[in-house]
Amino acid sequence: MRGEILSVGTELLLGQILNTNARELAVRLAEAGVFVYYQVTVGDNRQRLLAAYREALDRSDVVVVTGGLGPTYDDLTKETLAEALGVPMVLEERAMAGLRAWFASRGLTMTAIQEKQALCPVGAELLSNPVGSAPGVLWHKDGKLVALLPGPPHEMRTIFEASVFPRIRSMSGEHLQSRVLHLAGIGEASVQERLADLMAGENPTIAPYAKLAEVELRLTACAPSDAEATDMLTPLALEVRSRLGWHVYGEGDERLEDAVGEELLHQGLNIATVESVTGGLVASRLIGHPGASRYVAGGLVAYSLEQKRSRLGLSADTVGDGVSADLALELARGATRQFNADVGIGTCGFAGPTGRQVGLVYVAVAGRRGDRVRELKLGATREEIRQRAAQWALTLLWQQMREEA
Amino acid sequence: MRGEILSVGTELLLGQILNTNARELAVRLAEAGVFVYYQVTVGDNRQRLLAAYREALDRSDVVVVTGGLGPTYDDLTKETLAEALGVPMVLEERAMAGLRAWFASRGLTMTAIQEKQALCPVGAELLSNPVGSAPGVLWHKDGKLVALLPGPPHEMRTIFEASVFPRIRSMSGEHLQSRVLHLAGIGEASVQERLADLMAGENPTIAPYAKLAEVELRLTACAPSDAEATDMLTPLALEVRSRLGWHVYGEGDERLEDAVGEELLHQGLNIATVESVTGGLVASRLIGHPGASRYVAGGLVAYSLEQKRSRLGLSADTVGDGVSADLALELARGATRQFNADVGIGTCGFAGPTGRQVGLVYVAVAGRRGDRVRELKLGATREEIRQRAAQWALTLLWQQMREEA
Repeated sequence: MRGEILSVGTELLLGQILNTNARELAVRLAEAGVFVYYQVTVGDNRQRLLAAYREALDRSDVVVVTGGLGPTYDDLTKETLAEALGVPMVLEERAMAGLRAWFASRGLTMTAIQEKQALCPVGAELLSNPVGSAPGVLWHKDGKLVALLPGPPHEMRTIFEASVFPRIRSMSGEHLQSRVLHLAGIGEASVQERLADLMAGENPTIAPYAKLAEVELRLTACAPSDAEATDMLTPLALEVRSRLGWHVYGEGDERLEDAVGEELLHQGLNIATVESVTGGLVASRLIGHPGASRYVAGGLVAYSLEQKRSRLGLSADTVGDGVSADLALELARGATRQFNADVGIGTCGFAGPTGRQVGLVYVAVAGRRGDRVRELKLGATREEIRQRAAQWALTLLWQQMREEA
Repeated sequence: MRGEILSVGTELLLGQILNTNARELAVRLAEAGVFVYYQVTVGDNRQRLLAAYREALDRSDVVVVTGGLGPTYDDLTKETLAEALGVPMVLEERAMAGLRAWFASRGLTMTAIQEKQALCPVGAELLSNPVGSAPGVLWHKDGKLVALLPGPPHEMRTIFEASVFPRIRSMSGEHLQSRVLHLAGIGEASVQERLADLMAGENPTIAPYAKLAEVELRLTACAPSDAEATDMLTPLALEVRSRLGWHVYGEGDERLEDAVGEELLHQGLNIATVESVTGGLVASRLIGHPGASRYVAGGLVAYSLEQKRSRLGLSADTVGDGVSADLALELARGATRQFNADVGIGTCGFAGPTGRQVGLVYVAVAGRRGDRVRELKLGATREEIRQRAAQWALTLLWQQMREEA
């Protein structure tokens, strides 16, 4: 089945917003067994939109359209589809009632212009929108399917998942399923080396994606049913986990701070930080996990040399020029003492943009499970160096907890 | 002049990467006086790419293409352009020499397959790539221009800015110039209210964009020369600044932490933080500005109630259930005492995702310039609430420094 994603909106053509919808739909359509051959963006212009519809209906089986479903004059997506299909629009009473209820529940009065949202091309159906006022539209005839979805990503996603994805998947007869594994402390090249034979497979597939501070692995299986797809992915995920060991920290939406937080709770440890180069990023990420109050004992941002000396009682020798493996360890140990914590994290380094040895960073973990320190040479901008340093600090802690668990 | 952006790459169709190039080019083409009517994405497929070229050459004056310029078999962008134009490819000696030098400077040996990158459609020119191995391509004839650029954003941007943007701008004869003003502590609706008459203008234009925790204003002027465009923007920017006062914190790439940092230096103040709900985010952002060691006295992450009591010597009454205006002020005052700082910032609140009053946040500033506290009701996810809270903490400090400057 051939698919096409059509994005409508002058704000996209002007670059005022980034087209995240097209990417998200591309991923999900692939998972529904649709081969997307085209992504097209046009503005809020009747003539060009009409031409885009005609071309899409001619060359694609599944056409997913986003944007231009609102009530104002430049929202043309629905009426132009009716024109392309050569059918009139009718007012749907059920949708009108839904719209009235939606506005009433927000204490708003519905204006005449908003009634437009209850119009539907004859032969299509309106898809209810539980998170906004503009309903979606689904047209399905002679093996072709067109879905119209609102532009706001949250509304687009809600309607697509509830009412469009299942329909497309039942059309394609193929069930694609994906699992995403998150890796820490390992680069893309090492992953490829360790998984070369598995990555050569055609179904299921394994694809690595390098992100700013981690590698993500997407495992995908295509089968005649969901159960069979699951049966293909389960042993593959186990094999990957067994080969990569502690490097696999989580799956799906899980972040490294979530995995670290759960492991701290599980092991009954609390934690504190003394951060120089990361300046609060590590603490902030730890606290990003809900329930962090149960294991974050506290954090100190000691950015200047003076701070490190006076607050942690370090000697001028240890502090030196402010960046060394010893200093990172002393900061981590200082964290445990200052906050009476089981485990401490310390970071120091040169984040630039100017000065010598930009990108040289040390991260350390100290405490009841022993001490570790790691020297890093991190690249690119000040912001990226600091983000990567924070990721490595959490990675070092994760490694220690898993290796000694 | 009509423009079109053509993105080539199966990884885009599969949603493996987000098409940031299309957005960036859209912004710059608008600034060069080109009306972009279409954005199209196709995979690494000769036939569909050829059809896309033919359609683009037919309907657009300026076609900017990204991706598929590498040396491997599935990089088809250049040869398919030659096919669409009906011209052969020739090897460019100068480009060959450039490629050899590029590989030699990295200690790499150039393979035969890489010679492909020195091929050029007859009648076009290769554009040198100082940051990668794949050169760009420019074809310009009979009022039509086609530019081929590598997919990696850094290479795309470098070649576009150096070799393509100036050519397009001289074609269009129009000079668009933009200035971006960053606002803090004011919403989109208030901005529209205060600038309604200015925003009604057609040239120059003012467009507001609401981002996660701030509003951005883009001022754009279109004139026959750069100097005239500048002359249109200068008084407009002054007028906007005079109407919005301290809410305008910066321009261009400047971030709120940059503006705050420079102002702290200017006023000879140093600063410290005690963060609960933001958990290190405020300190981390302050330290994101290069040179922060000159004014960041230190920071404390006191997430648990226990921490707040024991480290800051606060009474159980003040700490209460951990969220109040008084507590935020005490945290800010505690910051000045703990780190012997001129100014302190304190934050507390409920970030959720569960529990009562999720989104209720207090941020406070205390110190030599007096005390301020602000109650906020912030929306959405735990992450967004914390990000917005950090932005408001910096905003409150910025407001105080500017109002009393």
